[in-house]
Amino acid sequence: MSNNKLITPRKLSGFMELPPYKQLILDEMISKIKNVYEKHAFMPLDTPVLEYSEILMAKSGGAIDKEVYNFKKGDTDICMRYDLTVPLARYVAMNANEISFPFKRYQIGKVYRGEKAQKGRFREFIQCDADIVGLDELPIVADAECLALVDKVFAALNLKILNHISNRNILFGYCEALGYSDKVQDILTILDKINKIGKDNAIEELIKLDVKNEDCDNLINLTLKAGSFGQILKEIENLTDNATYQKGVSELKEVYSYLTAMGVNEDNYILDIGIIRGQNYYTGTVFEAMIPQHPEFMTVCGGGRYDNLAGYYTDKKMPGVGLSIGLTRLFDLLDQNNMLPEFKVTNIDLQLIPMGDTLCECLTLQKFFSEKCVCDVNYENRSFKSKMKEANRKKIPYIIVVGENEVKSKIYALKNMNTGEQWNLSKEECIKKIYEEK
Amino acid sequence: MSNNKLITPRKLSGFMELPPYKQLILDEMISKIKNVYEKHAFMPLDTPVLEYSEILMAKSGGAIDKEVYNFKKGDTDICMRYDLTVPLARYVAMNANEISFPFKRYQIGKVYRGEKAQKGRFREFIQCDADIVGLDELPIVADAECLALVDKVFAALNLKILNHISNRNILFGYCEALGYSDKVQDILTILDKINKIGKDNAIEELIKLDVKNEDCDNLINLTLKAGSFGQILKEIENLTDNATYQKGVSELKEVYSYLTAMGVNEDNYILDIGIIRGQNYYTGTVFEAMIPQHPEFMTVCGGGRYDNLAGYYTDKKMPGVGLSIGLTRLFDLLDQNNMLPEFKVTNIDLQLIPMGDTLCECLTLQKFFSEKCVCDVNYENRSFKSKMKEANRKKIPYIIVVGENEVKSKIYALKNMNTGEQWNLSKEECIKKIYEEK
Repeated sequence: MSNNKLITPRKLSGFMELPPYKQLILDEMISKIKNVYEKHAFMPLDTPVLEYSEILMAKSGGAIDKEVYNFKKGDTDICMRYDLTVPLARYVAMNANEISFPFKRYQIGKVYRGEKAQKGRFREFIQCDADIVGLDELPIVADAECLALVDKVFAALNLKILNHISNRNILFGYCEALGYSDKVQDILTILDKINKIGKDNAIEELIKLDVKNEDCDNLINLTLKAGSFGQILKEIENLTDNATYQKGVSELKEVYSYLTAMGVNEDNYILDIGIIRGQNYYTGTVFEAMIPQHPEFMTVCGGGRYDNLAGYYTDKKMPGVGLSIGLTRLFDLLDQNNMLPEFKVTNIDLQLIPMGDTLCECLTLQKFFSEKCVCDVNYENRSFKSKMKEANRKKIPYIIVVGENEVKSKIYALKNMNTGEQWNLSKEECIKKIYEEK
Repeated sequence: MSNNKLITPRKLSGFMELPPYKQLILDEMISKIKNVYEKHAFMPLDTPVLEYSEILMAKSGGAIDKEVYNFKKGDTDICMRYDLTVPLARYVAMNANEISFPFKRYQIGKVYRGEKAQKGRFREFIQCDADIVGLDELPIVADAECLALVDKVFAALNLKILNHISNRNILFGYCEALGYSDKVQDILTILDKINKIGKDNAIEELIKLDVKNEDCDNLINLTLKAGSFGQILKEIENLTDNATYQKGVSELKEVYSYLTAMGVNEDNYILDIGIIRGQNYYTGTVFEAMIPQHPEFMTVCGGGRYDNLAGYYTDKKMPGVGLSIGLTRLFDLLDQNNMLPEFKVTNIDLQLIPMGDTLCECLTLQKFFSEKCVCDVNYENRSFKSKMKEANRKKIPYIIVVGENEVKSKIYALKNMNTGEQWNLSKEECIKKIYEEK
């Protein structure tokens, strides 16, 4: 394979590739999220990364969004999935007869968006989604179940979050009550960016839509309401008797009663009417979880209720509610801010270093130790000194140098590389010592 | 989202998509493989699914193999990875200065080959690879480490395998000794398919290459030698003193001594000179593990030693040895042959069924039970009878019907759905009972 013309090894920009000791931490996070989802009776689904373009692009009538990776293979027009929700919709529509509803599924997988590469934006990233899909109807308790799940997942990840919860029917109904039924979507788009553009610019844009001055103020005041459920509900429950609005109030009350029954810590969530979420497929509960100590992280988990998940593929009505964590971005932020748990450069607990002709004995010993811990044999053809240096650099916690004497006596000098302490022990005692100190 | 023109939901053919209860089993297998790899000090790597075409296609000088998915995004020529070895080569070449060698990495991920769809062939499939990469040199004990790993992985999967091991230097050296140095690759290609085309056809093809009659017999006899290491080594060690051949013999002896020291069960591996493996990048040890009870499964795990992994990307010499399991295919075969472990349709241990207005109490109870088991609340708006039927269909092991009486008394009727037995217990006793019976 030797080759005169070398190709410079490089990877595509916007694609995360971690050194193994960091990958170990990311994998641990995935495993924790998976455990929480499974513990709450969500079952795994793994849809393909590739789908027919026609299916993934149903929303835009087949037009390919420029950020989507797509290509032809033979006559087939193919897209890489850009989220896990559309494949879920396709899956439930295809398998509606075999599925027992409500269908609680989670999916942790990579999705692809060929966006302009920039800091913190990834073209390949892991999403961790959990959704509950009903047939014909899905009670509001499912919304609370997802909200409680958000709380549990971040507790498992040891991250203190605040979940900002709202219900889109509130602002929807309020707009209706003010007589702007035909402009609801445009008004919400403006209100959604108040924090970005500021109150004054928002008013200006609303006025361009022919919203009356006093209505602007009322809309913005309502949007900015945020605080404990009890307090905010009291402030807003009687603002209008519009039916949509009152549906929102009643759903929020119901969600709140379930969260209380579930014992979700009230420090971890608020009612925040300003939570709108861009996508217009949300129809009720919406939420965005943030890390209060790091507002610059923005939304680390978001989701909500949609009335009809699979409307492009089936006449069956399938309401759903779900949450999504953008794990690659979150991991990157934690890494940039030195918030990753302490890590080891290696997963090795114990390394055996052969001295003289003892490699075979080391292998036999390794078999014994491997039952209990991660044990490695350093079989490299290097000097003893450089092996010790390497073990130190890798922060391997324990080593045993195995020479002819050790092989004869079956007594091994176990060395703690952190403290420098050393004990002469049988192999069984070595294991005990390692566990005792752990 | 209601839509008059529905799009028929469908997925691309050749892409596996399991129902969640089977996905649970596949995930469990992945987790077992991962655990074995990590226990043996292999560290995780997760390279991107997409790479520059120039990098992935280095071997063919940039020409795109027709089975590879490739496309342009802007001006960039991109390929989906078709294996995990080439990305590993790219990674070690790119990061050689940060890596500490020998580099023991595993990667479990999906790879893509747009082959003609046929039964048992997948276009998206999971590979579970583990490799050890050295810098400049890598001792033969690394080969033994990979072979022992194969044994451990399949033991963890509860599959009885036989690993057919050889060393390519044997047939290489033998060809050289017979004077066919210039035709070695062509001869090996023929010998590699003896089992497929039969002995007579193989001889015919060899004769076309101008191999002498008696040489044909000798080559085929050597190729067909298979049995215990001790026996076969005795039979072949002195066939020729060709240096390449003797290198093969000596490496096999060394591997055998390490496997013995590691306590690998001799029932699980043989020396089989006929193992050649198509890819000509293997340069020493080669192996293919099969399931003796299911020879029709063919190779379930294969691998070997390569002298120079990253030769297209760097002048550094990086010998390696590794193994690869094609998990999607293996899972499919096990499934087709009813060899999957017994599965549950759900992961729920205990379901609470509210009767009357007790949903909130059920949610509070669920919080308690969820600490210990997978507990679900059936909050569907359906009749009690249909809920019980559904719990039976899903084979949920335990249920508790929670009515007003249970809420008052805090005594719950725990029902074992398999036996029909029922006990009146406190919530703590319910947990005990569930664990006791598990």
